[in-house]
Amino acid sequence: MEIEIHLAKPEDRKAPNFDKLVFGKIFTPHMFVMKYEEGKGWHSPKIIPFSNIELHPAAIVLHYSQTIFEGMKAYFGVDGKIRLFRPFDHINRLNRSADRMCIPQVDPNFAFEAIKTLVLLDKDWIPKQKGSALYIRPFIFATENTLGVKVSHEYLFMIILSPVGPYYAEGFNPVKIYVTEEYVRACPGGTGEVKTGGNYAASLKAQAVAQQKGYTQVLWLDGKERKYVEEVGSMNIFFYFSDELATPALSGSILPGITRDSVLKLASHLGIPAKERKISIDEVISAIQEGRLKECFGTGTAAVISPVGEICYKDKPYVIGQGQTGELTKKFFDYITGIQYGEREDEFNWTVVLE
Amino acid sequence: MEIEIHLAKPEDRKAPNFDKLVFGKIFTPHMFVMKYEEGKGWHSPKIIPFSNIELHPAAIVLHYSQTIFEGMKAYFGVDGKIRLFRPFDHINRLNRSADRMCIPQVDPNFAFEAIKTLVLLDKDWIPKQKGSALYIRPFIFATENTLGVKVSHEYLFMIILSPVGPYYAEGFNPVKIYVTEEYVRACPGGTGEVKTGGNYAASLKAQAVAQQKGYTQVLWLDGKERKYVEEVGSMNIFFYFSDELATPALSGSILPGITRDSVLKLASHLGIPAKERKISIDEVISAIQEGRLKECFGTGTAAVISPVGEICYKDKPYVIGQGQTGELTKKFFDYITGIQYGEREDEFNWTVVLE
Ligand SMILES: Cc1ncc(COP(=O)(O)O)c(C=O)c1O
Ligand SMILES: Cc1ncc(COP(=O)(O)O)c(C=O)c1O
Repeated sequence: MEIEIHLAKPEDRKAPNFDKLVFGKIFTPHMFVMKYEEGKGWHSPKIIPFSNIELHPAAIVLHYSQTIFEGMKAYFGVDGKIRLFRPFDHINRLNRSADRMCIPQVDPNFAFEAIKTLVLLDKDWIPKQKGSALYIRPFIFATENTLGVKVSHEYLFMIILSPVGPYYAEGFNPVKIYVTEEYVRACPGGTGEVKTGGNYAASLKAQAVAQQKGYTQVLWLDGKERKYVEEVGSMNIFFYFSDELATPALSGSILPGITRDSVLKLASHLGIPAKERKISIDEVISAIQEGRLKECFGTGTAAVISPVGEICYKDKPYVIGQGQTGELTKKFFDYITGIQYGEREDEFNWTVVLE
Repeated sequence: MEIEIHLAKPEDRKAPNFDKLVFGKIFTPHMFVMKYEEGKGWHSPKIIPFSNIELHPAAIVLHYSQTIFEGMKAYFGVDGKIRLFRPFDHINRLNRSADRMCIPQVDPNFAFEAIKTLVLLDKDWIPKQKGSALYIRPFIFATENTLGVKVSHEYLFMIILSPVGPYYAEGFNPVKIYVTEEYVRACPGGTGEVKTGGNYAASLKAQAVAQQKGYTQVLWLDGKERKYVEEVGSMNIFFYFSDELATPALSGSILPGITRDSVLKLASHLGIPAKERKISIDEVISAIQEGRLKECFGTGTAAVISPVGEICYKDKPYVIGQGQTGELTKKFFDYITGIQYGEREDEFNWTVVLE
C-alpha cells in the first residue's frame, strides 16, 4: 500500500518553542489515517494535515469503547540522528491488544512505515533537549454506527505525534504513590494486559482520590485477592530488596511494559539478579520498615524510569531510601536514556535509526 | 436553561416504514447536545438535526474511554399515549455512572426535560406495533484533547433516538446462553456496576466465542472466584427454582438493572417469593439436572424479558424447561409490557406519560 500524502500549509509546519512542554497537549502538523471496512480490509492510508475527525453519534467507540492504543517515542540523538525505541515491540503489542479487543490487526511492517514516514515528515517537531522526545500515539477505534453491542465492522487507525518534555512535573525526583484498597484496575480474564481505553477510564477515580491526598499515582493491587502488587498508574514497578531486584510477574492483568522488559534484560546484562514473581504489599511494607527495601521505581515509555520515594498504604506514608533517588534507579535511567539518545552503544539492538 | 431548537428539513422528518427494524441502526431526525466546560458547567443545550460530530484526534474518549450511557424506551400505547418507563431511575443511574467515572452529573429534571422535548419532537418516529419502541440513548463522553491520562475538563452530553423492533432476532423465543470460564466482565472495585463503555468492550471477545459456538449471549461468572453467576450480555438473570425465584444479589460488579428491579417488585406484588442472593453456576447446573430449575430468563430494557432455553457450561448444553418459554416468564413479560403499552393499570407508578 502506498501512503497518500497531503501536506499542511507551510505556516502551520513551523515548529514552536519547546520550552514549556506539557505532556500530550500540542501536536505536529500532520497525522496518519487509515480505514478498515469488513470485506475490504485496511485501505486508503493517508498522511493529512492534523485536523478534527468526524464521527457518527452512534460510533461504537463512543458507547462501547472498542479502542486500543500504543505509546512510543522518537528521540533526537546527540549525534543528530532520530531513533525509535523498540518500535516493533510496540507494534506487536498493538496487535495483541487488537486481538483481545476483537479489532483487526495491522501489518507490522506497514505500521512501521507509516510511523517512520510521519515522524520524518514532522522531524522539526522533535524537541532536541535531553529528556524531551516526540511522543508517538498510534490508535485504532471502532467507527461503525450501531447501538447494538457488537464487534465493529469499521475502524480508523490513526497516528498522532506530540512533542513532550519529561513526564512528571517534578522532574527526575522521586514520586509518591498511593495504594488503593477500594478500587481495582483489572483482574484475570479481563483486559488489564492490553492497552485499551476502559482500563484507563476505570483508573480515574482512584487516581483522583490519590491526588486529593497529595500522591502522584496509584499503586494497584491484584483484583482477586487485593494482596499482590500489580503496577502503578501507567508504569510497571520494580523493588530493589537487599539481595534482589524484583517486579511483579505478568499475571494476566498487568500490562507487559516494554521498559519493564528493557530493565529486566539490562539487569541480567549487568549481572544484577532480577526476578519476576508475586510481590505482596505486605512484603513491600515490611521490607520498608525493616530497611530492606533499598530502592523502588516505576518504568514506562512516558517517564522511562521514575523513582518512587514514598508509598502510602492504609493511609500511612512509608518513605523509601529517605525519599531520594537510588543509585541503581539512576543507573538504569542513565543506561536506557543513554541508548535512546545515542550517547552509548546499543548492545541490545533496541533502537532503530530513522533516515 | 432553555433548550435551543433547530429543526431538521421537512423532507428529513418523514418517518420511514418500520417493518424491518434492526436494533439501533436508524435514528430520528433530531438529537440533543449539551456541552460541559470546567468552570462554566453544563451549558448551551440544543436540539439540532441529527448529524456527525467533530472530535479532536486526542479527545480523551477515543484513548481512555471516559464515557457513560443509558438506555431506555418510549412506548406508543394502545390508548395512543406515549409512555416512558421509569425515566428517573434511568437518569439517576446515569448520574451514578457519572460519579464512578469522574464525569460531572446532570440535573435530573433538566435531563428529563431534554428527553421529553426530543421524544415529542420526533414522536412520529415511535413505531406503533407492540414489541417495538423508540430506544432512547443518553450518553456523556470526554472531549478534552490531551494524551495525559486524566479526568477530562470538557464533555458532551448527547441524546439520540432509534426506533427499534424486538431485540432478539428470534423474537420471544428462548435464547441459548454460554458460560465463559475464560473471560471476566468485571470484578469488585471495578466498573461493572455502572454503564461505561469499557465493560462492553471487555465483553466482545467472550461474546464472539459464544456466537461461534451457536449461542446468543454470554453468561458471566464473578471475577473473583469464577463460581457465582453475575449476568448475561446486557441483561440481568433470574432463575425460577422449585420453590423460589432468585437473581444474583448486587455484588458490586453487576449492573443494577431497572427491569430486574421491576421483576423483583412485581414478584413481591404477585406473592411470589423472590430472593437476591449468591447463585453458583454449580447450583444452577445441578438444579437443571435434577429437574428443579423450572424457568430461567434475562431482564433488560432492550428485550424486557428474554426466556433462556439452554445454558452451555464446560461445553455441555443443558436444556431448561424443554427449551420452551415458561409460564412465569410469560406472566412477567405480559405484565410489564402491559404496563409499558398502557394496556393495564400502572399500580407501581413506573410510567410517565409524555404530552
Ligand atoms: C497501565 C500501564 N502499565 C505500564 C506501562 C508501561 O509500559 P511501557 O514501558 O511499554 O511504556 C504503561 C504505559 O505504556 C501503561 O499504560
Ligand atoms: C450489562 C447490563 N446488565 C443488565 C442490563 C439490564 O438493565 P436494565 O434493565 O436497566 O435495562 C443492561 C442493560 O441496560 C446491561 O447493559
